[in-house]
Amino acid sequence: MNHLQSIPLALTLMLAVTACSTSPSTEPLHRYHLGDWETEIGYTQAVRHGDLLYLSGVVSGEATMDQQVTAVYSTIRTVLERYGAGMEDIIREVVYTTDIEALKQSIETRKAFFADDAYPAASWIQIDRLFMPTAMIEVEAVVRLRP
Amino acid sequence: MNHLQSIPLALTLMLAVTACSTSPSTEPLHRYHLGDWETEIGYTQAVRHGDLLYLSGVVSGEATMDQQVTAVYSTIRTVLERYGAGMEDIIREVVYTTDIEALKQSIETRKAFFADDAYPAASWIQIDRLFMPTAMIEVEAVVRLRP
Amino acid sequence: MNHLQSIPLALTLMLAVTACSTSPSTEPLHRYHLGDWETEIGYTQAVRHGDLLYLSGVVSGEATMDQQVTAVYSTIRTVLERYGAGMEDIIREVVYTTDIEALKQSIETRKAFFADDAYPAASWIQIDRLFMPTAMIEVEAVVRLRP
Repeated sequence: MNHLQSIPLALTLMLAVTACSTSPSTEPLHRYHLGDWETEIGYTQAVRHGDLLYLSGVVSGEATMDQQVTAVYSTIRTVLERYGAGMEDIIREVVYTTDIEALKQSIETRKAFFADDAYPAASWIQIDRLFMPTAMIEVEAVVRLRP
Repeated sequence: MNHLQSIPLALTLMLAVTACSTSPSTEPLHRYHLGDWETEIGYTQAVRHGDLLYLSGVVSGEATMDQQVTAVYSTIRTVLERYGAGMEDIIREVVYTTDIEALKQSIETRKAFFADDAYPAASWIQIDRLFMPTAMIEVEAVVRLRP
Repeated sequence: MNHLQSIPLALTLMLAVTACSTSPSTEPLHRYHLGDWETEIGYTQAVRHGDLLYLSGVVSGEATMDQQVTAVYSTIRTVLERYGAGMEDIIREVVYTTDIEALKQSIETRKAFFADDAYPAASWIQIDRLFMPTAMIEVEAVVRLRP
């Protein structure tokens, strides 16, 4: 086999590897932290596996539901920006809230974070309480990352 | 390189791309809608990423738990059929319910939707309430799609 | 084309398939059971898809929160060992608990299961009750498997 023939073979290999490089299963999982408290509690803000980013539930210390909705989705947007992703890349979210009727009053506030009606699959659940006693909403998400 | 030799190379490329085509990470996420209300609330019934389909929590307006179980899993089955998938392709589900004892009374109703004991990984959780005040059960799922 | 040239082509194909073998989308999902009760209730303890393992919520019949935390994470570790995975391979978890303040008292007990601060993305949620009336904690997880 001569060298001219080996070029397309090498290219083929590179393409195959590139196309699949989103699942580097033998490397440690990539972890992203927002602060030191995560290690004290025992969680990681975001863990990347292949082309998926899994976000821990995001909360806020703000006073009202509407402020918490704004703060939570702003934090999510900031984390995504670090990975070159946008809100339209959120595949699914679970919204845990202590007051689903109050959350419904903030639907427009939440929707303003998403453009072109590109909303994620979602479950909205009213639960007893969250880790932070004052938190009214916690949002976890699975996000698609681009190569 | 002559044309005869380039055929297997092209085939190799095609095979590599096909084998990996379940992660088309540069395209917009594929979104599936059941109705206009999704855009008003701000969610998408099902979002596809690669060979995975993420379903929003499915609910029903029926009157009894048993009827809601039947309606919810019928809806899920209908969505899956649109993607050529079956109930045996559900990888995991979370069942949120306002009354887990009532849900236990409907176990046989739910099990009838699954053949050959091919059940998903599952968490069943009793929570305060769901988005729809009359909903007693909401089921979200992650589903494997076939190429 | 002679045989010498066909070898690298075959190798390329094998490499491409190997690199993508984590998504064998046409095979039945791999299911792992801990006991017969799963089939009676209608769930599977762990379902594998590609290089991801989805665990059903794990509970324990122990008497105290601290004992339940130990039992639940021990069970998870045992399941992971069957797949050659460790606690550092848990990508995300959801911890459902009936008493989040009691769970906070067991943070060190839980953290002892994780080495090198390699914690998963996590949501901790206080809910009404779990499937087993005496369960105080239920942990579901998505885990990365190595080839």
